[in-house]
Amino acid sequence: MEAQIQGHNKKLMEFPHLTSAHRDLMVGIISSLENHLDSHLLPSSVPPDVQFYQNQNGTSQGSLHIRSGVDSSHIDFILASWLHLKQPTSESAAINITNLQGYLKPSTDVPHFQFELVQCTPTYLILFLDITPRKDIVLHPDYLKKYYEETRLETYRQKLEQVPETKPYFSSSLYFRQVVSPTGILVSIKCDENGGGDRSEEIIREYVSPIAYDVMGIWLDKIFECGGRSDERDELLEKRDRLIKSRAVDMDLSSSMPSQFGQEVANRVLGVIKNVFSI
Amino acid sequence: MEAQIQGHNKKLMEFPHLTSAHRDLMVGIISSLENHLDSHLLPSSVPPDVQFYQNQNGTSQGSLHIRSGVDSSHIDFILASWLHLKQPTSESAAINITNLQGYLKPSTDVPHFQFELVQCTPTYLILFLDITPRKDIVLHPDYLKKYYEETRLETYRQKLEQVPETKPYFSSSLYFRQVVSPTGILVSIKCDENGGGDRSEEIIREYVSPIAYDVMGIWLDKIFECGGRSDERDELLEKRDRLIKSRAVDMDLSSSMPSQFGQEVANRVLGVIKNVFSI
Repeated sequence: MEAQIQGHNKKLMEFPHLTSAHRDLMVGIISSLENHLDSHLLPSSVPPDVQFYQNQNGTSQGSLHIRSGVDSSHIDFILASWLHLKQPTSESAAINITNLQGYLKPSTDVPHFQFELVQCTPTYLILFLDITPRKDIVLHPDYLKKYYEETRLETYRQKLEQVPETKPYFSSSLYFRQVVSPTGILVSIKCDENGGGDRSEEIIREYVSPIAYDVMGIWLDKIFECGGRSDERDELLEKRDRLIKSRAVDMDLSSSMPSQFGQEVANRVLGVIKNVFSI
Repeated sequence: MEAQIQGHNKKLMEFPHLTSAHRDLMVGIISSLENHLDSHLLPSSVPPDVQFYQNQNGTSQGSLHIRSGVDSSHIDFILASWLHLKQPTSESAAINITNLQGYLKPSTDVPHFQFELVQCTPTYLILFLDITPRKDIVLHPDYLKKYYEETRLETYRQKLEQVPETKPYFSSSLYFRQVVSPTGILVSIKCDENGGGDRSEEIIREYVSPIAYDVMGIWLDKIFECGGRSDERDELLEKRDRLIKSRAVDMDLSSSMPSQFGQEVANRVLGVIKNVFSI
């Protein structure tokens, strides 16, 4: 209990700019992950001025929560965040990005967990949900079988494909496209601009939410199945992890942070992120 | 000239069951590839009863054309084929599969070339067009840059995405999904069942055809750019190639051949294919 209170980040859990379905999902899934992994995690070491930060006039805001794994755990760290980014297009327009990620140590080859839900407008969302491979699947069909075929992750991708408002989304980063697993869910969800807000909420509650919990559950099962740490090093896996992490930070944050928050805030936040990503 | 006549496969070039736009594209692009690579290729060594084959009552038919590369060439082999597969659903229903592939030797890391156009019905097509990576792109961002970013292959994928009848197609093979490059084109093209045949023809002529020629042109440029053979072996690349090839044969042919053509014909055709694929 102590660890949980220490590790808690009140500001994160407020998710102040989200619709209720989106907020409920994020608060619930982050709590669930922290409960499942509690004995694996150290308290948060994120300083208060990175737990919550904003630009000079407070129109763009962000919150970051990171807990590293204890020495004996396969968990490298979990990261949860939200970003509320004011758009230059209008006074009120803002993008809301929410994230929950779980990175593992090279002591296991279990995939990393990635869940990002972006609210571009109240009726337009982008969803990324995946356990991302740590090995080249073309070279390791056994890896595909163990983590993607036997877990039947494809059924979740197909379930969401049936929702008429969803459409496959192609990231502008060709590198990122290759990082995603063959069952990775990367879709846009576009509802009617007039009154489609309720439908967006419904899609999050009825589809995105249960699928996100189930995929996270499969990921946790694989972590708990994989047993204790081995000291055998897989140098290719380590190199691959480093590349995935450094590209993720570059792509998501390095360019947008300074323009949204100013150089000083950006340096502070990116410093914490780069430190935990070891880049 | 001699080599070209020897290498020619008259039966292949008939493409007897296709619409004219589809036939024109296949005849044109195969001729173009053979002209460009002529000095690289040996004559076809496919026996006549595999150059053309059919089931007992002649309702399913196929044609196969293979030319291996000469010793000094980076070309391993090129393969062109068509399959006309009677469907159990009705007397007249048949699927037409056309293929043009170029596999390279481990003396180069230039991607393989893959072009498959499947006519499921006169108004429903599936297109796969790609240069498939020989290396794990996540581990080799330089490979991504050289063959996919700098060649601007993404513009072709996007051009086709603009055609309203196209939709991303997800292969049922999770392995195959990972073989495809980040700019790989894998789409279904669905036109109106009533009178959409003309539109299918138009899409092949106006979009599929020029894009297929351009992607093949980019691939040929990369082969001619990459210089002479090196004797340095890349064991991971060789292993990856072997796995890609054996999965391709398993997925495409091994199961459907015996049921469509009977075991004897299937053994004969698969024997020739497995031999050139070295599996």
